[in-house]
Amino acid sequence: MQAAHYMGNKEFKVMPSTSIAPAEDEVRLNVGFVGICGTDMHIYHGVMDQRVSPPHVIGHEMSGTVAEIGANVTGFVIGEEVVVRPLDFCGVCPACLAGHSHICHKLKFMGIDTVGAFQSSWTVKARTLHKLPASVSLKQGALIEPLAVACHDVARARLVAGEKAVVIGGGPIGQLIAQVAKAAGAEVMISEVNESRLAFAKANGMETVNPATENLNEVVQAWTGSRGADVVFEVSGVKQAIEAMTEIASVRARICMVAIHSEKPQIDLFQFFWKELELLGARVYEPADFDKAIDLVATAAIDLTPYISSVSMLAEIGQAFASMDGNPQGMKALVSCQTEEA
Amino acid sequence: MQAAHYMGNKEFKVMPSTSIAPAEDEVRLNVGFVGICGTDMHIYHGVMDQRVSPPHVIGHEMSGTVAEIGANVTGFVIGEEVVVRPLDFCGVCPACLAGHSHICHKLKFMGIDTVGAFQSSWTVKARTLHKLPASVSLKQGALIEPLAVACHDVARARLVAGEKAVVIGGGPIGQLIAQVAKAAGAEVMISEVNESRLAFAKANGMETVNPATENLNEVVQAWTGSRGADVVFEVSGVKQAIEAMTEIASVRARICMVAIHSEKPQIDLFQFFWKELELLGARVYEPADFDKAIDLVATAAIDLTPYISSVSMLAEIGQAFASMDGNPQGMKALVSCQTEEA
Repeated sequence: MQAAHYMGNKEFKVMPSTSIAPAEDEVRLNVGFVGICGTDMHIYHGVMDQRVSPPHVIGHEMSGTVAEIGANVTGFVIGEEVVVRPLDFCGVCPACLAGHSHICHKLKFMGIDTVGAFQSSWTVKARTLHKLPASVSLKQGALIEPLAVACHDVARARLVAGEKAVVIGGGPIGQLIAQVAKAAGAEVMISEVNESRLAFAKANGMETVNPATENLNEVVQAWTGSRGADVVFEVSGVKQAIEAMTEIASVRARICMVAIHSEKPQIDLFQFFWKELELLGARVYEPADFDKAIDLVATAAIDLTPYISSVSMLAEIGQAFASMDGNPQGMKALVSCQTEEA
Repeated sequence: MQAAHYMGNKEFKVMPSTSIAPAEDEVRLNVGFVGICGTDMHIYHGVMDQRVSPPHVIGHEMSGTVAEIGANVTGFVIGEEVVVRPLDFCGVCPACLAGHSHICHKLKFMGIDTVGAFQSSWTVKARTLHKLPASVSLKQGALIEPLAVACHDVARARLVAGEKAVVIGGGPIGQLIAQVAKAAGAEVMISEVNESRLAFAKANGMETVNPATENLNEVVQAWTGSRGADVVFEVSGVKQAIEAMTEIASVRARICMVAIHSEKPQIDLFQFFWKELELLGARVYEPADFDKAIDLVATAAIDLTPYISSVSMLAEIGQAFASMDGNPQGMKALVSCQTEEA
C-alpha cells in the first residue's frame, strides 16, 4: 500500500506503507476517493502545522470498501462500500453524555488530529462508518462528508419548506448548503463575489447576488417583499458578511454561523434585540446528517457530479493540491487512492 | 385628574389634565400604581429626549381599574382590575402578519412613543389589557410588566426544569428572570457586583457570584461539574459579560441577550462554533408572557412584594425618580396615581 505524507510547506511524499490490521472494534478499508477540503488546504499552507505535526497522513472526505473486519464488529461484509464520519469522540464527557458526541470536549478530528485517508488502506472504528447504497458511486461518496456538513447546518437553522434563505459565500460548502436548503423546499439566494461560482449557483437553480457590484440588502429586501431572509447562512468568513447578516435577516430569523471567525468580530446586537434574531453555532455533523446526505444523493435530490472538478491519482496528490490553491473555479478535487498494491 | 409631565432635564410637572373618553375600541382606566422602569430613568436623564419630545407623560409599568368602556369593547366591566401590555402595533407589517406583533416593524411603545401612565386616568386600546385576579393586588400588578419581560426571556431561552442557568446582572429584571427560571424548575446563579443585590438574590434562594471578587468562570464550572451553564441570561450590558457569557456556557447552551448593547461588541464566535452555542435576541413580551406573569403571582409562585422599595404619590414623582437615581439598593419605586379627582 501507499500513503501520502504531508511534510510541511506545501509538500507531500507518497511512500510505501503498511496496512494496519483492525482491532476488535475496527474495520480496515481500501480507500476509494478522498476529496481535498478547505481545511486540508489550510494544512497544506502550513498554518496548522502545530496541530498536525508533519509528517502526517491527512484527508477526511473519503469513500472506500470494507477490506478487513475486526473481531467484535457486526453488520458489515467484505467489499461493502462505505464512507467514514471522521470524528473520534471520548464517549464520557458531558457533551458525549448529553448526546452531542460531535462536540465532544475531547473531540479528535480524524485526518487532522489522527491519521487520515490519503492512503490506499485506512483502519478506522466501525462506529464511524455509513454504508453507501448502490445508487451512490464511490466518487460521489467522497463528497458525502461535505454534504453532511451542509445537512447539519440546514438542520441547525431549523429551515422549513417555503422559507427564503440567503447563503453568504458560494464555495463548495455554501453551494451544498444552498442545495440542501432547496431540497428541503426553501427558496435560496447565494451571495458571492466570484463570477464562476455565481454561474455554478445559477446552474443549480439558485438566485444569486454579487455584493461587490450590487447592494446585498436591497436585493434581499426586494426578493423578500421587504420581509428579510428567514434564514441566513454565513459561510464566507469575511467581516462584511458579519455586518450584512443581521441587516438582511427578517424578524425572528435564524443566522447559522458556518464560517469560523477566530478574531471575535463586532456584531450588531441591537438587531438581535430589535428583530429577535437567533445566532446558531454549527460544528461538523451528527450521524443523522450523514444518513440524510447519503439519502439526498441516493434519491437523486442532489447530484454531486458537477462538484467534482478533477480526479488525480494518489501519486499526484501534490499537483492536486497545487491545482486547488487560489482557484475559485475548482469546487472539489478528488484523489483516487486505489493503488495497485491496495 | 392629574398628569405628570416629564419636562426634560430630570424635571416633572404634575398638572391638572382632562381625561379622554374611550374610542370604540378603547377603555379608560383609573390608574392605580405605576413603576419606574430603567427606561424611565434613561428618559429622566434626558438621553431619550429626541424620542419622547418633552413635555410628555411617560410611564408603562402600571395597574388600574376599568373606568369607562368603548362602544365596541366586550368582556370588561367597570371596576375590574387590569394591567396594560404597553405595545401599539400596526397589525399589517410582515412581523405582525407572522404573529410577532411585539416586534412589529412600526411598533410604538406606549409611555415612550405615545402618552403613558403617570397620570390618574389613561385611555388605551382594549386589546392591551390583561385582567388581574383578586389574588393579585394593584401594587403587585404594577410589576406584572417587568415580570412579563422576565417570562419572555425565559421562554426565548427554552429553559426547562433541571437546567442550570446563570443570570449576569442582578437588577430588577435580572432578579425577576432568576425567579421565573427557578419557578420553571431550573437551578439559578446570579452574577452581580453589588452586595445588596447579591443579598436580595440570596434571600430569594439563588446561588450567587460576585465577578469583581471571584473568578466567574471557575465558580460556574465548579457549580456545574465542569459542564458549564445550560442557559445564560446577559442582563448587565457590560463588556465583561459579553466575554464571560460564551466562556461559562455549556455545549449547546442558549444565551439570551436581555441587555441592549448598542455599540456592536466583539463576540467570541469561535465559542459559538466550538460548543454549538445559540444566541437569542429578546424584545419586550407577547400576550402569553403577561398571562404567565399574572399566573405566577396569582399562584404565589413568585412574591413581588419584596421588589417594592417605595410607594410615592403622583405629586411626589420627581422625588421618586431622584430616590432611584444611582441607587442599586432600590429595586422598584411605585407611584400611586389615584388622586382624589381620578
